[in-house]
Formats: sequence, C-alpha cells, structure tokens
Amino acid sequence: MNKSRIEAFSDGVLAIIITIMILEIKVPHENTFQALKPLIPVFLSYILSFVYVGIYWNNHHHMFHLVKTINGSVMWANMHLLFWLSLIPFGTSWIGEQHFSAVPMSIYGFILLMNAISYTLLQNKLIRLQGKESHLHHAVKDDKKGKISLFFYIIAIPLAFVSPWISGLLYITVALVWIIPDKRIENQINKD
Amino acid sequence: MNKSRIEAFSDGVLAIIITIMILEIKVPHENTFQALKPLIPVFLSYILSFVYVGIYWNNHHHMFHLVKTINGSVMWANMHLLFWLSLIPFGTSWIGEQHFSAVPMSIYGFILLMNAISYTLLQNKLIRLQGKESHLHHAVKDDKKGKISLFFYIIAIPLAFVSPWISGLLYITVALVWIIPDKRIENQINKD
Amino acid sequence: MNKSRIEAFSDGVLAIIITIMILEIKVPHENTFQALKPLIPVFLSYILSFVYVGIYWNNHHHMFHLVKTINGSVMWANMHLLFWLSLIPFGTSWIGEQHFSAVPMSIYGFILLMNAISYTLLQNKLIRLQGKESHLHHAVKDDKKGKISLFFYIIAIPLAFVSPWISGLLYITVALVWIIPDKRIENQINKD
Amino acid sequence: MNKSRIEAFSDGVLAIIITIMILEIKVPHENTFQALKPLIPVFLSYILSFVYVGIYWNNHHHMFHLVKTINGSVMWANMHLLFWLSLIPFGTSWIGEQHFSAVPMSIYGFILLMNAISYTLLQNKLIRLQGKESHLHHAVKDDKKGKISLFFYIIAIPLAFVSPWISGLLYITVALVWIIPDKRIENQINKD
Repeated sequence: MNKSRIEAFSDGVLAIIITIMILEIKVPHENTFQALKPLIPVFLSYILSFVYVGIYWNNHHHMFHLVKTINGSVMWANMHLLFWLSLIPFGTSWIGEQHFSAVPMSIYGFILLMNAISYTLLQNKLIRLQGKESHLHHAVKDDKKGKISLFFYIIAIPLAFVSPWISGLLYITVALVWIIPDKRIENQINKD
Repeated sequence: MNKSRIEAFSDGVLAIIITIMILEIKVPHENTFQALKPLIPVFLSYILSFVYVGIYWNNHHHMFHLVKTINGSVMWANMHLLFWLSLIPFGTSWIGEQHFSAVPMSIYGFILLMNAISYTLLQNKLIRLQGKESHLHHAVKDDKKGKISLFFYIIAIPLAFVSPWISGLLYITVALVWIIPDKRIENQINKD
Repeated sequence: MNKSRIEAFSDGVLAIIITIMILEIKVPHENTFQALKPLIPVFLSYILSFVYVGIYWNNHHHMFHLVKTINGSVMWANMHLLFWLSLIPFGTSWIGEQHFSAVPMSIYGFILLMNAISYTLLQNKLIRLQGKESHLHHAVKDDKKGKISLFFYIIAIPLAFVSPWISGLLYITVALVWIIPDKRIENQINKD
Repeated sequence: MNKSRIEAFSDGVLAIIITIMILEIKVPHENTFQALKPLIPVFLSYILSFVYVGIYWNNHHHMFHLVKTINGSVMWANMHLLFWLSLIPFGTSWIGEQHFSAVPMSIYGFILLMNAISYTLLQNKLIRLQGKESHLHHAVKDDKKGKISLFFYIIAIPLAFVSPWISGLLYITVALVWIIPDKRIENQINKD
C-alpha cells in the first residue's frame, strides 16, 4: 500500500490547522497601537501552537520518510493523531483569550498530552510494521525525547492550578526540546 | 486519463471538511471547567463526524488505489460525493447545538444517506469502467456493508421522531461497521 | 519548467473555495423544519456555485493535462484566474442572503464574467506556448462554448434589472453547457 | 532528504492564506450598489495582499525548483517564513477596515518586512546548502531586488506617520518590482 496519499492528506490537515488559528485573532476596531495590546496574549498563544504544529509536521515528515509500507491500522492511528491535532486551535484560542489562566492552561496541556500519546501509538504501529531492524526503529530507539515530553505534560496539567506560568514554561521547554528536528532520523536518512 | 489529480483534489476537500468543523466549536468566554459543559454535545457530534469523514477518506483511498482509468463522468460522480460530504459540517453543528433533537438528527441522517448513495454511484461507475474482472469488482462484490448502511440510514431518519437516541445509535453502529477499513480491498491490494 | 506544482497550488485554492462556502450557511438556532426554510435560497446559491467551481476544476484539470511546458507568464495568468474564482464565495453569499435580487445577481454575473475572461486569457497563453499544432489547440479550436458563455454573462448582467430570474436562468444554462467536461479535450487525451 | 513534501505543505499553507482573506470581506446586508461602497478599501487591501502572497508563491516555487537537497534547518527556516506569511490576512483586514490609516499601515509594512527577512534567511540557507557553484546562487547573485524591497519596507514603516499614502505607494512599488517572476531563476532553469 502506498504512503503518498496518507502524507498528502496529513499535510492538508496540518496546513489548515496551522493556518486557521489566525482566523481566531480578531482584527481590532480601532487604529491605534494600544488596540493591539489586548491581542498580545492571543499572539503569544498563536506562536506557541504554530511551533507545536510545526514540530508535529516535521516529525511526521521525518517518520514517514523512513516508512516503506503502511496498512489500514496505520491509517486510523494517523487519523487519531489528526483528531487531537485538530483540537489545538481550540485550546490556543482559549488560553489566549483567558490570559493563560489555570483551567484553560491545564486543558491545553491535556490536548498536548493526547497528541503526544497518539503520536507515540502511531510510531509504535509503524515500527512494528517495518520490523526491529528497520531504519525507523534504529532512529527512534528508546525514544527518550518522547518519554520526557509525556512526563512534562503530565506534571504540567495539575501544576497549572499551582501557577499557570509553570505549565507555560513546561510547554515551552518541550517545544524547545523538539524544535531541533529528529537528528537521529536525519542521520538514518543520510546513511542511506 | 490520470487519477492523481482527482485524488489530490478530493484529499484537499476532505482535509478542509474534517478541519473546519472545529471552527464551529466556539471557545467559552469563561475560564472554568463548567464553561466546557455546554460544549459536550458539540464535541460528541464533532467526534462522530470526524470518524465519518475519516471513513470516507479511507474508503476513497482504498477504492482509487484499485482504479486504473478514470473519465469525465467519474469526475462528476466524485464531485457529487464531495458536495454531500461538504454538508456534514452543517449537520454536525446543528445536531450539536440542538442537543441531538429530532429534526436535526433526521436531517443529519439524510445527509449521511445522500453521502452513502453518492459513494455507491461513484463506486458503480468505477467498477463499470474497470470491468467485471477488475480487482475493484472482486473487492467490492455484492457490497453487503454498503447495503446495510443504506438500510440503517433509511430507518434512522423517521426513527429520530420516535427517539433521536435510536438514530444516534444507528449512526454509531454504521460507523463501527466501517471503521475497519475495507479488508476486502486491502486483501486485493496485497495480492498484487 | 514543471507544471505539477501549479496544479497542486490551484487544486488547493479550488478545494478551499468550494468548501468555505459552506461556512457561510449559518446553522439555525431552532430545531424545526421551518428553521431550514429561510436557508433555501442560501442552499440554492451554494449548489450553483459548487457546480461552477466544479466546472472550473474539471476544465482546468483537462487543460493542464494537455500542457507540456509553462512559464512565469502562465503562472500569473493562473493566479489572475484564482483571484476571480476566490470572489465566488462572496457573490454566492450575497445572492443567497438577498434572495436573488437584482444588484447582487448582476454582481454575481460580473464575477462569473471575469472568471470566464481570465480563464480564456490563461487558455490563450497556454495555446501560444504549446504551439499551433499542439493537442490543446486542436482540442479547443474556435472555443464556441467559451464564446457563448461570455455572451450569456454579458447579457445576464443588465437583464438582472429587468428580472433577476432571467439572469439566474442564463447562469444555470451556462453551467449545464459546461457540466459535460470538455469532450474535445478528453478525445485528444484518448488519442495519445 | 526529499523536497516534495516541504513544497506540498507550503503550497497548502499558501493556498489557505490566499483564500481565507476573502472570509474577512463581510457580505453587505442590503442589496444595493451603495452597500458595496464601504467595502472598496477592504477589496483594495485584498488585491494588494493577494498579489503579495502570489509573488511569494511564485518565488518560492522558482527557488525550490533549483534546490536539490534540504535539511532540518531548511524546514524550520521555511516554517518561519510561513509564520510571517500567515500574519498577512490579519494585516490586510486591519488596513482595509481602518481605511489605510497610519498605525495599521505601518504594522502591515512590518509584517511585509518580516516576510522579506525570513525569505532572505531561507534563501541564504538554501544557497549555503547547494554550494557557491549552484544554479540557485548564480540565479540570485547579489539579490538586488531583495535588498531594494527591504529598504523600501524600512522607510515605509515610519513614513506611514507622515502620510499613509506614501507607504501604500511603496508597498505597491515593491509588488510591481516582483510581479515579474524571477527571470534570473527562470533563465537558469531553461539553461538546464
């Protein structure tokens, strides 16, 4: 079975997710710099989520690059990931409009957690399909970055009620960890 | 004639349909968990429709995988399917906002029925074009799943006026029947 | 120069245009059949425009199928066409919300006219580039359908002020003329 | 590493950006020609931004045409460009709704400036990767057009407070300079 259409469909969905978030930023009805001030938290949440969707696209791209065969089960695991990714614009607007307060920040963390889990599930399915000796398996190995991310999300969700800023810092930290695209996979690709 | 552009266009339309539904879920203007409560029916309808569009994408992908040639008539049959698929976001918002009440639930069923009919029309056109001995014809055979779905939709539409929950259960049942992507087609593909 | 990316970009824009029109159909705030009644003109205008965008996609697809080389000038002619196509959702909403009254119907005709003109300009550029002996030139020949369409739009615009229904009938007639995808081009393709 | 998916993703994002701007043009609630009058500035800003996104797509297309290899760093430079492009619809709506007044016009210039800078960064990364003797390097050379554009944006931002019309003229001038797609790159392509 061919992987190109699953890539094209995922690219389409990710391109829409990353772009429709801008529709949530309402243009001010005045023509002053001050009118932009209330938009600052909305813009900050947009930047964070833009980077997150960018990371997912990058890693998705790298992962599928090492994939040779897919099946129906992979398709649904991919659809499951797209579902949770599609909730990012909702979480983004909420934390932006509510100035990063506790409940929205914990829900945002929950959405990020579910994205990470569904990505891991997809990755595991793909590794099982490609085999233990596959490039993908060598590239991912024990997936330390994935495990650290899951741990950070899990502690960030309750910590939002201590201080939303702690959660925010944890979300930014995970993003920084991932912003460097999976060098391991890139190395595997270059070995070919 | 080349099938890749019809696939690309359909992927684009399906990616947009599945993603714009999230725009209908209005972000709450408060920062409490209770503020999420009124959104529960909207989220449930979103999940159901996400799964349905996912099923259509999966089956569309599998079907066109077995297709070698297309013509202008196939293009319009495909456009007809895309038209009915594009009404899913409308139906989804309506059942969600009206808490799955009778009229919206019957209209939602009507939209699903028209999708199923237009999919069957497209499938028949493709089988006729590929010939009786084609992989596609062997894969679909008597299309039991398709016929059961049509039957379920037809009874779900009036039953919404007895109880919308019956219709809801029927829609979920059909989704579960299809969520397993067409093994028959997958088997045909693997035989190649 | 490669034509695949211009096709992909056009497919993307057309997919979005055809799908975002559904966002303009506001979900009723009641759960009765009567609540759908005021939406009837909006739905009718949606169907008409869906068919029009479908026709443009079909013809665009067929035309580029016969094209071997493109250049920067073709890219801008294509962008010009996409610009006028992007105004169709605006015209569609306006005629729907204003129940096909005179001014919106004439503006809708103007948008269709500009689409037809920009399509013809693109077609001429492509024919000049492929040469007099090209398949594309043989397929289009004297472009009777194109000329009839232009004529119909030109008379439909002022006739909207006599009766908007005449314009409506003219727009539907042109759509019916085109709904049969360019057999001439299809024949040229099959000859290859 | 393969460049086709980065092209497809960029095409998707650019197609959405160029199309969603039309959603910001609110359909008038009357059916008269006068009702269109207040929309004129909104339409003018739409045309300007449509041309700008068109230019970026054209140049992006040409540039990647000459590219053979990419890496993770190119992906992030491309994502950075897409981020600033995604802010164009926001700026477009603001200048349109506020009738091209000073503050929105300077912010619009700032968005254009950041787009130009991020495009230059991406271009430099690609040139470094392809090498000094690459077609891309020969095509871009000292990038006079790029430098002039940066200079024009930088003076247009403060000049908006002298007269927004000066800024507007500068933005239009830059667009006209670029509307002719990079002949230099086209020549390099034809040499191949």
